[in-house]
Amino acid sequence: MTSFTQKPLYKIANPQSIVFFGASNNAIRMGSLMLDATLALGYEGKIYPVHPKEDTVAGFTAYRRVMDIPIIPDLAILVLPTDIVADTLEECGQKGIGHAIIVSGGFSETNAKGKKQEKRLQAIADRYSIRFLGPNCLGVINTYHRFNPTPIKADGFPGFIGLASQSGSFLTQMFNYLHLNGMGFSTGFSVGNEANIDIVECMEYLGDCPNTKVIALYIEGITRGRAFIKAAKKIVPHKPIVALYVGGSEAGRKAGFSHTGSMAGPDEIYDGMFRQAGIIRAKSLSEMFDFCLALGNLPAPKGNRVVIQTHSGGPGATAADACGRSGLELPGLSEETIKKLSPLIPHTASINNPVDMTFSKNMLSEFNDIPDALLGDPNTDILMIYFLNPNIFLQGIMEQSGLSVEEAQDKTKDIIKGISEQLFEVKVKHDKPLVGYTYRSLQEDPVKTMLQKGIPIYNDPERAAHALQALITYYGYKKRQEGGQWENH
Amino acid sequence: MTSFTQKPLYKIANPQSIVFFGASNNAIRMGSLMLDATLALGYEGKIYPVHPKEDTVAGFTAYRRVMDIPIIPDLAILVLPTDIVADTLEECGQKGIGHAIIVSGGFSETNAKGKKQEKRLQAIADRYSIRFLGPNCLGVINTYHRFNPTPIKADGFPGFIGLASQSGSFLTQMFNYLHLNGMGFSTGFSVGNEANIDIVECMEYLGDCPNTKVIALYIEGITRGRAFIKAAKKIVPHKPIVALYVGGSEAGRKAGFSHTGSMAGPDEIYDGMFRQAGIIRAKSLSEMFDFCLALGNLPAPKGNRVVIQTHSGGPGATAADACGRSGLELPGLSEETIKKLSPLIPHTASINNPVDMTFSKNMLSEFNDIPDALLGDPNTDILMIYFLNPNIFLQGIMEQSGLSVEEAQDKTKDIIKGISEQLFEVKVKHDKPLVGYTYRSLQEDPVKTMLQKGIPIYNDPERAAHALQALITYYGYKKRQEGGQWENH
Repeated sequence: MTSFTQKPLYKIANPQSIVFFGASNNAIRMGSLMLDATLALGYEGKIYPVHPKEDTVAGFTAYRRVMDIPIIPDLAILVLPTDIVADTLEECGQKGIGHAIIVSGGFSETNAKGKKQEKRLQAIADRYSIRFLGPNCLGVINTYHRFNPTPIKADGFPGFIGLASQSGSFLTQMFNYLHLNGMGFSTGFSVGNEANIDIVECMEYLGDCPNTKVIALYIEGITRGRAFIKAAKKIVPHKPIVALYVGGSEAGRKAGFSHTGSMAGPDEIYDGMFRQAGIIRAKSLSEMFDFCLALGNLPAPKGNRVVIQTHSGGPGATAADACGRSGLELPGLSEETIKKLSPLIPHTASINNPVDMTFSKNMLSEFNDIPDALLGDPNTDILMIYFLNPNIFLQGIMEQSGLSVEEAQDKTKDIIKGISEQLFEVKVKHDKPLVGYTYRSLQEDPVKTMLQKGIPIYNDPERAAHALQALITYYGYKKRQEGGQWENH
Repeated sequence: MTSFTQKPLYKIANPQSIVFFGASNNAIRMGSLMLDATLALGYEGKIYPVHPKEDTVAGFTAYRRVMDIPIIPDLAILVLPTDIVADTLEECGQKGIGHAIIVSGGFSETNAKGKKQEKRLQAIADRYSIRFLGPNCLGVINTYHRFNPTPIKADGFPGFIGLASQSGSFLTQMFNYLHLNGMGFSTGFSVGNEANIDIVECMEYLGDCPNTKVIALYIEGITRGRAFIKAAKKIVPHKPIVALYVGGSEAGRKAGFSHTGSMAGPDEIYDGMFRQAGIIRAKSLSEMFDFCLALGNLPAPKGNRVVIQTHSGGPGATAADACGRSGLELPGLSEETIKKLSPLIPHTASINNPVDMTFSKNMLSEFNDIPDALLGDPNTDILMIYFLNPNIFLQGIMEQSGLSVEEAQDKTKDIIKGISEQLFEVKVKHDKPLVGYTYRSLQEDPVKTMLQKGIPIYNDPERAAHALQALITYYGYKKRQEGGQWENH
């Protein structure tokens, strides 16, 4: 087995030096945008632009030809007109460059001529032992290596999601989405036409990647079905895989075909393939990332018994209904838990499940003593909490106590920061899955801080319940895969 | 038939004067929060606090007893300890007040004693011909009357959603959610225990309310089933109704019972009731409001043929798949439309459906000429557009053209404003449903402005497709109801 740093994708995602074809001083060209985004994330490797006329590009010495570069760069990035891509790749081969990302389109996704040109790329790569991503792709991001040669600047922070995508948009156009929803990529690949490196190889790389806790796949069609299943089965026992497949409906199949030229198969075939491989299937892109948020942040649940903590009846009832419809159970609380809760909640509160605290005696106990008691109950496998933003009430309490508006704001901010940390400690202490839901913006504290700390919070209890269902399904797959029962499939 | 302004709920939602029991100068008491939120929305009617000790409350002259108030207020709002609610209501009756909101809890939702106390409220109301909302409710909001006697200040702007909710949280805790998603309430009622006015009467009121374009119902259990169906059937031909029912699963039923004491029924019974009445059923709260966004903003579709406009293959394919799974069709484009498009899109673009423009020749044409051509196609019933924020590219183009960063920002802002308006004009011109989807924040322009102008935009194509499915279902119901085929049900 090839070690992680020896894998061809390692140098594509972690190059120490790159040669850039197609970046110029015209800031709105694709190549320039990609170089700009690379610099914006703080890439610290060496950059060698090749340009036929310019002496410098974005402040770097530009070279007329790749041969003129004083070293052999780890990676070539090609953002060039279709007709000159093959010759350029050949020159890279002659230079001794072993890895490339070919962004240019106009190949097998277009017509017979494009197919022929793509075959030529493959032949050149084979001749020079070049491994490449693309063509017709949007590149790669490795947030830990501060490397983002894609056309869009990355928002947010490094995360734990490893993506392999048959759509470049679902790499680049998700930076902002993930950031807003408390997630981030570790490494992401836009695989394009998969002329040399395919999605299976990307998945295998992400399986080994130490920064990746969960793998997300956007699939329009898989060519190497057997290899795909085999590779996934090796990964699933130690890392969850979530997939969105859009080729199952006639409309999705046609759209995918015109996009990447991939051949999709009937829904049931893919369904079977995913089940066999132990891959969780999502039905939309937002659901795929919802699942990632839970799978990357939560420990294995002991069972499917969910306790719901709320201070409002309606949100409790919708969560209960969503859990019920997702096959989760709502256990009653033990006598001991009820005893622990009674000094914490008002007499009008309901100590059924959902635990409805109505207006709490001490609203801060929602973040420490109450979830601590609920997670401590042996009948509780999972805790789901409804969050309303307590700022508005806290601010009032502070002002009431004689503080000025500014003092009250500062004090409230401190408290909110404190309770986020307390809840996180409760989660760690019990090592049981804890999720939240809210109808407020995820950009507000305490929700924002809790999300960043690793408590998955969703904008609807249904999304939280589906994510828990995915979590339970994953640990079921993992158990069976570890047990070896699936070896003969 | 009672005219709209003669309905008992009219004075509850549009009072010219109110008496407030339970507000004080202690800012964090429930009654004080409610008075504060009322003032914050700019209520212009007269306010008479009643307080046993204070001389003024929130700057208003306070009265010891309701009898001391110089006029007969339109509405009494009671936020008092359970035990003194009935006597206070009786005094209101003696004063001649005809309408009340009883916020206080501790009635039939608790125990036998509470049930008895609620019966007493009903008897008093009958004796004095008082119509009241509650008890155990969170009040009402009428954004057009600037009237918000609820514990939470209202975000955002007046909207077209009329809500009748068996959860107070789903009134007050949705202000922020709706604002962030481009919606707002016209009038919303928290019905509480429905001891006097029930959800059916609220629905009837909203059916007549001129500011309400679509009615949303949060239901844990309906007592007057026949009346509910009859009332809904009258409303549906001129106004859509969307309902979320949570009592259908065992978990949801139990939770609802412990919340409002309502008796829920099996899922199938409610499903049948909704279908018979022509009510669209949503499966989550966010879906309910997703449906409202489409139903309140879009004209009747002529059919189910959706054209998808995108500049990225992946988002096009996920939208196609989502449409396919939601029973929508993707027609081909007519020869004439293809001719119109060819000068507008690059030669690498796909003129199948999805129409994938890849990188546009002129990215602004995505907001005018291209959707104009697509909506003009006789085969297009509905247009669905994928939005990426063009700001980042525009800004670069502007700077490239020699403008300073600040000038480029201003110019970009102007252009973005302009294109939002252009797309809105295209929508109006063709009078066909137009929806959008994006993975960016809905708080960014141009999406934010387009949302405010009435173009429904969702954070996932699946949500958009489900909303279109609801739109088509509604116009199917409407047609059948108008045709009278359902009269004998």
